[in-house]
Amino acid sequence: NAVTIDGATGLSDNTDQLQRFAASGWAVSRVDGHDPAAVAAALTAAQTSDKPVLIACKTIIGFGAPKLAGTGPAHGGPYGKDETAGVKTSLKWTYDPFHVPDEIVAEWRKIGARGAAPHAEWAKRLSAHADRAAFEAAISGQLPEGVAAAINAHKQKLVEAPKADGTRKWSGAALEVLTRTIPEMVGGSADLTGSNNTRTASTPALTSPSYAGRYIHYGVREHAMAAAMNGMALHGGLIPYSGTFLVFSDYSRPAIRLGALMGIRVIHVMTHDSIGVGEDGPTHQPVEHVASLRAIPDLLVFRPADGVETAECWEAALAAKGPSVMVLTRQNVAPARTAHTDENLCAKGGYVLKPASRPEKVALLATGSEVELALAAQAKLEAGGIGARVVSLPCIDLFEQQTEAYRAAVLGPSAGDGRLVRIAAEAGVRDGWDRWIGETGAFIGMTGFGASAPYKTLFEKFGITTDAIVTAARARV
Amino acid sequence: NAVTIDGATGLSDNTDQLQRFAASGWAVSRVDGHDPAAVAAALTAAQTSDKPVLIACKTIIGFGAPKLAGTGPAHGGPYGKDETAGVKTSLKWTYDPFHVPDEIVAEWRKIGARGAAPHAEWAKRLSAHADRAAFEAAISGQLPEGVAAAINAHKQKLVEAPKADGTRKWSGAALEVLTRTIPEMVGGSADLTGSNNTRTASTPALTSPSYAGRYIHYGVREHAMAAAMNGMALHGGLIPYSGTFLVFSDYSRPAIRLGALMGIRVIHVMTHDSIGVGEDGPTHQPVEHVASLRAIPDLLVFRPADGVETAECWEAALAAKGPSVMVLTRQNVAPARTAHTDENLCAKGGYVLKPASRPEKVALLATGSEVELALAAQAKLEAGGIGARVVSLPCIDLFEQQTEAYRAAVLGPSAGDGRLVRIAAEAGVRDGWDRWIGETGAFIGMTGFGASAPYKTLFEKFGITTDAIVTAARARV
Repeated sequence: NAVTIDGATGLSDNTDQLQRFAASGWAVSRVDGHDPAAVAAALTAAQTSDKPVLIACKTIIGFGAPKLAGTGPAHGGPYGKDETAGVKTSLKWTYDPFHVPDEIVAEWRKIGARGAAPHAEWAKRLSAHADRAAFEAAISGQLPEGVAAAINAHKQKLVEAPKADGTRKWSGAALEVLTRTIPEMVGGSADLTGSNNTRTASTPALTSPSYAGRYIHYGVREHAMAAAMNGMALHGGLIPYSGTFLVFSDYSRPAIRLGALMGIRVIHVMTHDSIGVGEDGPTHQPVEHVASLRAIPDLLVFRPADGVETAECWEAALAAKGPSVMVLTRQNVAPARTAHTDENLCAKGGYVLKPASRPEKVALLATGSEVELALAAQAKLEAGGIGARVVSLPCIDLFEQQTEAYRAAVLGPSAGDGRLVRIAAEAGVRDGWDRWIGETGAFIGMTGFGASAPYKTLFEKFGITTDAIVTAARARV
Repeated sequence: NAVTIDGATGLSDNTDQLQRFAASGWAVSRVDGHDPAAVAAALTAAQTSDKPVLIACKTIIGFGAPKLAGTGPAHGGPYGKDETAGVKTSLKWTYDPFHVPDEIVAEWRKIGARGAAPHAEWAKRLSAHADRAAFEAAISGQLPEGVAAAINAHKQKLVEAPKADGTRKWSGAALEVLTRTIPEMVGGSADLTGSNNTRTASTPALTSPSYAGRYIHYGVREHAMAAAMNGMALHGGLIPYSGTFLVFSDYSRPAIRLGALMGIRVIHVMTHDSIGVGEDGPTHQPVEHVASLRAIPDLLVFRPADGVETAECWEAALAAKGPSVMVLTRQNVAPARTAHTDENLCAKGGYVLKPASRPEKVALLATGSEVELALAAQAKLEAGGIGARVVSLPCIDLFEQQTEAYRAAVLGPSAGDGRLVRIAAEAGVRDGWDRWIGETGAFIGMTGFGASAPYKTLFEKFGITTDAIVTAARARV
């Protein structure tokens, strides 16, 4: 209609939208949007197109309004009594407000009834179909049987052959197990497949000639990728996941938020999660992203510490009703979980990873790559006679949902003589952590943007080290 | 080069980019990117174009590398010894690494010297120019004289004729004063001019036939708008500001972050800042946005409470070296500042807006529209004998930069018998507030997404009320 809120579209745009869509391979046509026969003809033609179709309907905004027709204010402002009366006159609409005349109701009811026979036919086919149970399970959103067993076996193997690796690699290993077990999973990446470790042996690419694949090369389109995943999840029968770098979550953020608002199961794999990115420097080093994703309501942000936690976080994300973000390292992390548990410890968001072995004074809280530092700090503190527990908090959103009693048991005494000093370590900003460390604790993390250097140099430079944790704890005990 | 990191561009795109740019009015051409004469000819032709020009240079990525040429891995992976030797052989490059042959150095030095004469000519013209002082002041980034006086006079008028209005309207009033005084200011909006109140009498629109204007109708392009503002600020001589809804800051976020990383003065006006948006509902109601913008390092987030604070926050944003976000209400707020001060109280980020008049037990912290609730809660508490101060925190980022002593004086005693219970109120999520309220305080705000209803109904429904503040305070005194 050539109008935006600020005025004529020409104020801000001169794009030929039909040419622009044609450039991307769409079939395009232009019709008079106030001519129902022309619109119907265009829609009929579209049904036989082998391309996506854009039908540009030229219209007049506020059609029929004596003064507002064709103007920006027709978009959002109230029309008022006179304009409303004018519209009704020019459209020959003589009925009272909210009254729908019988003949129109009858026509609409016909349209409503039109799908009844095809639907009955479809239901009949489905009820006799060999894949009915699998189809109904997928549409219901239930995971196939065997997922828990497969993840548990995977965890057992990890504990039996411990090794250091990036959690993005451990995510890839978990996805090998999961995509083999869950045919509904549809993967992808915004042109970072090799870095995000999102593609598995079970997920051949979906390409233009072959729609059988279930891995999508989304290209450098983080926002569209997240939005497309929302669409797939809303359709049902699919569990979409995809990858990009955590710093680029800023691009997908509007669609991540909508997924949280809609409460749909999409899983965003976000690798290269801190200054641990190293040489690519501050443009590529997330600092505020974990905190700002945690601020989105109804979104689970997972930051696992090793292979076992990564597998457990994947299981928890798949069990969730809403969306999740998997925050994963580029750099290697040492195994944190050295004994197998059938129980998914990450499912409660936080747990005591390693209790104190001396009279306890300190609780060390950490996520992801900083759990390794907390474990080393614990050893140093205890060697000096200060007992400390290490609390891993792979999902603070889930931890918040636990009972007060569970949280208190994990964090340790918070009052009286036995009160523990809480030191938190996370290679990101402090925002959100004060709730957990309280007034007597300390936070070891980032206070500004990163820098370009090998990652070990950066952790030293920015003071995110075992010694920094030890020093902060000793100063407060 | 038809290659992305994941592989051939055809994996994820089939757009004819030349046609796509042509659709937006660009002059486009295609050349062999490995043919220097063809590239030079295209550049020469571009210099006389009256349109923006796209020259598509078809190239081979990793040109000359025996195995990597034309492949995705040529983009980011190390080439290794053999491939590097292969490139040198095929390009007939016989020099040692990092050695630049003399004849090439000589050619480059010639290019470096080429601009000397025109630059000297320009400097001569400038030194004799009537507008030299104004030009140099603008380029230096210094504000014109008279800004402080103009803002102070504006503040005085506001106090003399107090009235309730949305802080977006108060921002428009401050901008009337500022754009009249500061010719370097270049305004705009992402198609929400009437809602953002960013256009003033001094800022005619910049349009295709008239480049003299200094107000840009950016269209619905929040990210491009923020990025364009970064570019203008980097050029120097301009102070860009523009508007959109706060919830859409998610779209501009990547460019807001880059502005913070670069430390450049751009001002993002973000109106409709909470559930106060009302009927448009949760898609348009920011909840986590203030917290997540505060998490970005080196970005100032202002949320003023009334007309005076809005004027002071504008003055502080213009005085800052880095970027700022002005977070403003849609709905009316009552005047909070009823006596004039020459001093800009908001410049320190937080201050005692109204001290206690009874034996003091409580500090009520608030920002923006919730300052009004805190003032009403103070009156109720004091009527019941509980003394309370009201602390306005229009910019927590600046408050953090103050001395420990200043912050302690503003927040009141935090230990011992005189310790104040701190209750914070902000119509957003809690993240970031625990640092200020401590372990014995409370936060009155949002815990999830909003809803669609008149805004007063929403504040009641979500429990962001005077009574909620009073109840929380009484329970803790």
